[in-house]
Amino acid sequence: MYCLLKCAPLILAVAVCHGWLFGDFVEKQKELDEISLWPLPQKFQSSAVAFKLSPASFQIVHAKQSSAGPSCSILVNAFRRYFEYMFGDLKKHEKSRNKVYDSDLVELQVWITSADPQCDGYPSLQSDESYELSVDKPSAVLKAANVWGALRGLETFSQLVYKDDYGANNINKTEISDFPRFAHRGILLDSSRHFLPLKVILANLEAMAMNKFNVFHWHIVDDPSFPYMSRTFPDLSQKGAYHPFTHVYTPSDVKMVIEFARMRGIRVIPEFDTPGHTQSWGNGIKDLLTPCYSGSSPSGTFGPVNPILNSSYDFMTQFFKEISTVFPDAYIHLGGDEVDFSCWKSNPDIQKFMAQQGFGTDYSKLESFYIQRLLDIVTATKKGYMVWQEVFDNGVKLKADTQIHVWKERPQYQDEMAKVTAAGFNALLSTPWYLNRISYGQDWVNVYKADPQNFTGTDAQKKLVIGGEACLWGEYVDATNLTPRLWPRASAVAERLWSDKSVTDVGNAYNRLAQHRCRMVRRGIPAEPLFVGHCRQEYMGL
Amino acid sequence: MYCLLKCAPLILAVAVCHGWLFGDFVEKQKELDEISLWPLPQKFQSSAVAFKLSPASFQIVHAKQSSAGPSCSILVNAFRRYFEYMFGDLKKHEKSRNKVYDSDLVELQVWITSADPQCDGYPSLQSDESYELSVDKPSAVLKAANVWGALRGLETFSQLVYKDDYGANNINKTEISDFPRFAHRGILLDSSRHFLPLKVILANLEAMAMNKFNVFHWHIVDDPSFPYMSRTFPDLSQKGAYHPFTHVYTPSDVKMVIEFARMRGIRVIPEFDTPGHTQSWGNGIKDLLTPCYSGSSPSGTFGPVNPILNSSYDFMTQFFKEISTVFPDAYIHLGGDEVDFSCWKSNPDIQKFMAQQGFGTDYSKLESFYIQRLLDIVTATKKGYMVWQEVFDNGVKLKADTQIHVWKERPQYQDEMAKVTAAGFNALLSTPWYLNRISYGQDWVNVYKADPQNFTGTDAQKKLVIGGEACLWGEYVDATNLTPRLWPRASAVAERLWSDKSVTDVGNAYNRLAQHRCRMVRRGIPAEPLFVGHCRQEYMGL
Repeated sequence: MYCLLKCAPLILAVAVCHGWLFGDFVEKQKELDEISLWPLPQKFQSSAVAFKLSPASFQIVHAKQSSAGPSCSILVNAFRRYFEYMFGDLKKHEKSRNKVYDSDLVELQVWITSADPQCDGYPSLQSDESYELSVDKPSAVLKAANVWGALRGLETFSQLVYKDDYGANNINKTEISDFPRFAHRGILLDSSRHFLPLKVILANLEAMAMNKFNVFHWHIVDDPSFPYMSRTFPDLSQKGAYHPFTHVYTPSDVKMVIEFARMRGIRVIPEFDTPGHTQSWGNGIKDLLTPCYSGSSPSGTFGPVNPILNSSYDFMTQFFKEISTVFPDAYIHLGGDEVDFSCWKSNPDIQKFMAQQGFGTDYSKLESFYIQRLLDIVTATKKGYMVWQEVFDNGVKLKADTQIHVWKERPQYQDEMAKVTAAGFNALLSTPWYLNRISYGQDWVNVYKADPQNFTGTDAQKKLVIGGEACLWGEYVDATNLTPRLWPRASAVAERLWSDKSVTDVGNAYNRLAQHRCRMVRRGIPAEPLFVGHCRQEYMGL
Repeated sequence: MYCLLKCAPLILAVAVCHGWLFGDFVEKQKELDEISLWPLPQKFQSSAVAFKLSPASFQIVHAKQSSAGPSCSILVNAFRRYFEYMFGDLKKHEKSRNKVYDSDLVELQVWITSADPQCDGYPSLQSDESYELSVDKPSAVLKAANVWGALRGLETFSQLVYKDDYGANNINKTEISDFPRFAHRGILLDSSRHFLPLKVILANLEAMAMNKFNVFHWHIVDDPSFPYMSRTFPDLSQKGAYHPFTHVYTPSDVKMVIEFARMRGIRVIPEFDTPGHTQSWGNGIKDLLTPCYSGSSPSGTFGPVNPILNSSYDFMTQFFKEISTVFPDAYIHLGGDEVDFSCWKSNPDIQKFMAQQGFGTDYSKLESFYIQRLLDIVTATKKGYMVWQEVFDNGVKLKADTQIHVWKERPQYQDEMAKVTAAGFNALLSTPWYLNRISYGQDWVNVYKADPQNFTGTDAQKKLVIGGEACLWGEYVDATNLTPRLWPRASAVAERLWSDKSVTDVGNAYNRLAQHRCRMVRRGIPAEPLFVGHCRQEYMGL
């Protein structure tokens, strides 16, 4: 349906629009509103021919040829979830209708084509998320190599279903072939500056799935608090959390987040940022942080991790050994940003060490010294790592598969993306997507316009851009306001990272996004309005 | 307790701080956090002597001498509400404890001193909201002329109760004498740009009471939608609301809002803004709006209310007759802002009328002509009126008791306040309190610093300032995000309008406000954080 309106300027390059679609223009406008897809699929054709879906008889089933079956819990969970999104509570719809009408769509067959459907696996950077969806009577077919593509296709299918004027469920004859533009499409949440109750994290994972995001970057600890409960070092949260019981993530909580995310094809990448941003670590681990000096005596305050003590590296070795087993993803985010040198400079032992090492007064050499040893420690756990751009900027020796996370405003992020990729590293963009920064009005537009490949570089460089992340730093958000502040503003990032790069029409995006946010609201996510208007069903929580 | 810290710079002028309070500084810091009063009372003294309150036996009762008793539903409702705020769900606390300990506070006696407690009345601009509160064993006494002061005192009492390290409820020996600096302390919510479900409005009335606000300015209709269901003109909402059933306020809804507000000492002042901001009115009332012309023929679009037809005034007469009976408050807000003259200018009939009246090309004369007749119509209903500042700026003849609502940024609001009061009118300030406008960071500080009496004028002029309103226009807010966007930012306005004008220390306010917002969160209001930190009990809704 979408093709009917904006096809020519917008997606000639990616969509196949048949001439026979262009009749009956006005009538279709209304239906268009109902099926506003977000993010826009790569290729699709849709027709005015509509089929009806009866909640009492419609089924989502495993295709006969599928390599996945009823024991595939990811799919079974997803079938239930999407059935409820489309038709409401399952219990309302007793199976009852025997007669099937000619105009009915009776089922959606989900056909996993590869030998290993990955039902019990975790999503990864290499996961194939592509799918093909064909909606025609009597059955729709969703074809994907594995469960990750099937999850994305189920979301799209659910977005195609709309209610007609009589409240009946309809879906139009449609063909879709879809895949993501970038492999890494993330959301960063910060649970240190404010503790985020589990409920909030899970709700945002749900919203992420509705937008085809696939990475939850969990900035779990930082200066203000250490809510991660470590089995190896329980004092970290015992003494570093806002409260040792009510404001921590227990091992069971962490497992639940990872499993909830897995069910939605979302990777969980934890960030344990060092050597800066570690004030809260110091409460639980003696001598981990550098004592700052005021003149010739300790001032009682502490700086970054102490890089000159072997005990610091012994601690990191044990700590990251635990982290590498708790979090199944192949990557860990190691931070490395914003190291404040003033405390190091004040400390006479550090000064002595600097002289011994021949670092002169260049404290970024000391920082690199620390990071280098940390990377070796983490490499030994067989994990890959992501780091903030400073680590690259300071010339630390990095493994070839390191992902450089670009976030700074100066120098221009386009230049930084060019530099990082010219050096042969994978790059991730966040600079234009710091969604904690707010301003009055429709600030989603600038978020939408940014493009991670918009820099001067070769094709090979562009290919090194693996995606980006929307970041919601926690200074001003907690359970009271996080979700509406993030959605649908993060949805703008979602489309940029999933859809073809030619999908840039802001007016068209506005119309689809306004509908998409109402869909999120209907599904229980308090996504805030873009502008004046209403949803058929307003948010009823509070 | 508050006195212990910041007394000297802050409230020497208003509070009596006894010397014996200043011992044991560190220990008291903690208790201070627990009882952060907001808004700060006019006069109080507090001691380190603490009494315990047992939810199983503590009672809020009518004092023997009180003119109010068990039939006073406002008080009975308030007793229950504040008991629950202090101790949680009533049902948890079966009455059980017989033994009363020497350290106990056993009851709060509420003593209404005037012959008419106003149990069945409505609050008004003239309501006496002062109260005196004495907390000493075995009984605390809250003395007020009538229920309105008692409501404010109950809020204060509930804010004095804190939990000690064992989770036991404590209250310190305290004497408070309190009254508001300004009589009109309002919140404007806009239910036209987005429909606000009743639940949202009621939750915000609760939050208003927690901040001692006393006016709900209900900007109920505007250009985008007309959700007010009129008995006289049902087509107004039938054709002008976003949806005729799901997105309207029925007469019963309106009654519920007014009663819910009355229970909390809050006036409900509806705004029916004309002649501009009336696009949605035109759907239901034929010929009400001015047809705009494109050259010599109607363009199909419409402008402000048509001021040259008698039918417009006949309609307004009937309409405001209904409004004057539905809303009990003595005031109606008649709007009068932002009238766009371009449509009037385009219309040949209007041009003819202008010539007949000798208005030349000064369309503000036509606007005044309309407003003048409207004011006569409303005056006949015996209501007073509030108007936006343009009505005053344009020189419309106004009744002496008219309230001029200052909102524009240019000219400077200080100059406008001076002009309005110099002309002898009551003035209300909103310019610095447009809370729909957001920016990154702690924008409550500038909200807090603004003062409605901060302009050059005589004492008599200053006395004409009756208060102000925090406005949350609806372009970007609905049920998903309204409450956290408004609170605790509106709390900054609440203190400015209630507390003594010398209460201006931002650091001190930050500490109390951070605690106050946690108190609102504990009471179920999703008030957003001021900055990094945590609440003992985080928001558990979503």
